[in-house]
Amino acid sequence: MKVLNEGITAPIGFFASDTAAGIKYQGRTDMAMVYSEADCTVAGTFTTNVVKAAPVIWDRDVVVKGGSGRAIVVNSGIANACTGKEGMDICQKTADAVAKEMQIKPEQVCIGSTGVIGMQIPEDRIVGGVPKLAAGLKRGYEASERAAKAIMTTDTVHKMMAVEIELSGKKVTIGAMTKGSGMIHPNMCTMLCYISTDAAISCEMLQKALSASIVDSYNMISVDGDTSTNDTCFIMANGLAGNTEITTECEDYNIFCEALDYINTELAKKMAADGEGATHLFEVIVNGAKNKEEAVTLSKSVVGSSLCKAAIYGKDANCGRFMCALGYSGVEFNPDIVDLFFESEAGSVQVIAQGAAPAFDEELALQVLGAEAVTVRCEMNAGDASATAWGCDLTYDYVKINADYRS
Amino acid sequence: MKVLNEGITAPIGFFASDTAAGIKYQGRTDMAMVYSEADCTVAGTFTTNVVKAAPVIWDRDVVVKGGSGRAIVVNSGIANACTGKEGMDICQKTADAVAKEMQIKPEQVCIGSTGVIGMQIPEDRIVGGVPKLAAGLKRGYEASERAAKAIMTTDTVHKMMAVEIELSGKKVTIGAMTKGSGMIHPNMCTMLCYISTDAAISCEMLQKALSASIVDSYNMISVDGDTSTNDTCFIMANGLAGNTEITTECEDYNIFCEALDYINTELAKKMAADGEGATHLFEVIVNGAKNKEEAVTLSKSVVGSSLCKAAIYGKDANCGRFMCALGYSGVEFNPDIVDLFFESEAGSVQVIAQGAAPAFDEELALQVLGAEAVTVRCEMNAGDASATAWGCDLTYDYVKINADYRS
Repeated sequence: MKVLNEGITAPIGFFASDTAAGIKYQGRTDMAMVYSEADCTVAGTFTTNVVKAAPVIWDRDVVVKGGSGRAIVVNSGIANACTGKEGMDICQKTADAVAKEMQIKPEQVCIGSTGVIGMQIPEDRIVGGVPKLAAGLKRGYEASERAAKAIMTTDTVHKMMAVEIELSGKKVTIGAMTKGSGMIHPNMCTMLCYISTDAAISCEMLQKALSASIVDSYNMISVDGDTSTNDTCFIMANGLAGNTEITTECEDYNIFCEALDYINTELAKKMAADGEGATHLFEVIVNGAKNKEEAVTLSKSVVGSSLCKAAIYGKDANCGRFMCALGYSGVEFNPDIVDLFFESEAGSVQVIAQGAAPAFDEELALQVLGAEAVTVRCEMNAGDASATAWGCDLTYDYVKINADYRS
Repeated sequence: MKVLNEGITAPIGFFASDTAAGIKYQGRTDMAMVYSEADCTVAGTFTTNVVKAAPVIWDRDVVVKGGSGRAIVVNSGIANACTGKEGMDICQKTADAVAKEMQIKPEQVCIGSTGVIGMQIPEDRIVGGVPKLAAGLKRGYEASERAAKAIMTTDTVHKMMAVEIELSGKKVTIGAMTKGSGMIHPNMCTMLCYISTDAAISCEMLQKALSASIVDSYNMISVDGDTSTNDTCFIMANGLAGNTEITTECEDYNIFCEALDYINTELAKKMAADGEGATHLFEVIVNGAKNKEEAVTLSKSVVGSSLCKAAIYGKDANCGRFMCALGYSGVEFNPDIVDLFFESEAGSVQVIAQGAAPAFDEELALQVLGAEAVTVRCEMNAGDASATAWGCDLTYDYVKINADYRS
């Protein structure tokens, strides 16, 4: 597998564009489009929130009904959630406009929205943005980057990736872009993530690969414990690479999955590190749990704890809070055999030994916690299951960003 | 029922004292003692956290073993959690010192600790504080207030209450003190809460009354989603009021429970309003849920949401976040029939009607959210079960307090 310095347009036949439609933001782009010149098999995973945004309901239909996709249109600024029938109409009209411009069917258009909930998208602006998006479609690094930037909300950096693999002797490429910074606690999937590939792969295997891939990537990150109404992970495969179509769990399927997992894990970490107000990537590794499910529960409990997150922000080796968060996770375990380590590029320091706090080198702990990426490693010593969760610290800026986000 | 301007020493035969033992804090009191001149039946509820502080393990034994209590000793500054065998020894030695001073048995002494986890309590200081506590025991408002102040950590106000009821023709009094500000998301019980009464009531009925009372009070508050290692609610009844002993669910039992519920609910609200860094009491009422369990889950999901809490801080009528938090609670419901209201002493404003955001009076919403106590009322329109949860807003100060709490 080769990592490319590219994004969503890296695979053959994919184009992207952006525009400033003035939906809510002023002075920046706020719509992006991704287009494949050939029909694609599609797969998607969506939020488990009972309150689903209109575009989530729309996209689920696209995936369920046929799995032939050609285009993705995404806007930032307004999430089109809690918007009733009017919100669904906006999706239909946007898809109609794309279909007309590109000579495709409305049901081949995936829609994505992110931003404020409970506000209607001005129809004239989103529909008015479509011809500009259609006219601006391009391939290459810049087009990928501009699209990734247009879908940002409170993100501070755009997030995109691409990798190259070989399947049945053919070069196959996967590209992706994602956004997400607040309201991030994916359950089933996360925020907006769009993946393109020129691999030939059946709809069924594409969905299988995607569903498996999000489990250890997006479903393991948390910024604030709030599972969004809009979480969407969507993949389109147009088959232009010319590889033998993947229709079973063959060797090629495994290579494809490995590349997809790599992309999703890296993007998930980027999303966690870019959590609203974050100054640290906060990684929690749980080893030695009785089973995988418990390892996941334990790691997520720590990564989601407000007090642990605040301690990471304050570079405070307040080890008791981490034991406390393991303790209220709901998993039964013997605290008297647990070991805990703070780790980073600056070193490793043991802060809990057999359930109690030993004297440790406070100076070294401060150095370890001063790094940009900090890991808390929990050795449960009760089995051989592991899990890794990613989050970020809790800072003044998180509060600031969210106290007046809507205005 | 009559509310008294009193605290833990209001019932007959109860005394309190405080001292500055220098356990961790300097320049303030950090130990309190409550003493009953007669043997008490006792009952308690404790944290469900797997990681339990030494005093929680100690107190559970006191309650389980016999239910004869005489004294409570509490320190603030260090929580005596994650402290291994040394932590249990501290409990034993403290109880021994109290037993010696008061001529009672060590197993009649309840111990409480609150503060930093993963740090040992200096034995000489806590044991050295006991004779001063024993010498200073007094009755009355001032003694109650001083004890309530000594057990504070990041609390900004002390919390105490007392009420008077009549049972079988006798005046019966219940007094209480509590502390709690951070790491508050009780599950089974909360933080430190000590209740005294001169009622005559059997151990079994006392435990029954207490266990029932915490369900709709302390178990319905959340400051930060972190369930502490030290949560303790402990009640002592010395029977000196001379009422006919309560041994069944008789009329007197119901009167006693009503008074106990009143005290616990009011103290729970005080605790939520005094959440770390809080500027608002945030109340979430869920009506029309299918059953009580779902009403509880829905209200707790909203009251615990970082984004809802930040919106309350910012006086931002960001209604979508509240719908979103209902949606990811895990409860299945039809979002298209939900109504949502923001309410306070300044008025009421509907922000969601049948699942979508109507145009509403933003000026009025700002006034409503400007009040010190803000209620979000969620009408699920799906049944007739209700629940109320209490929390507070998420502020810069919460982060500030917790980023460097240990140092």
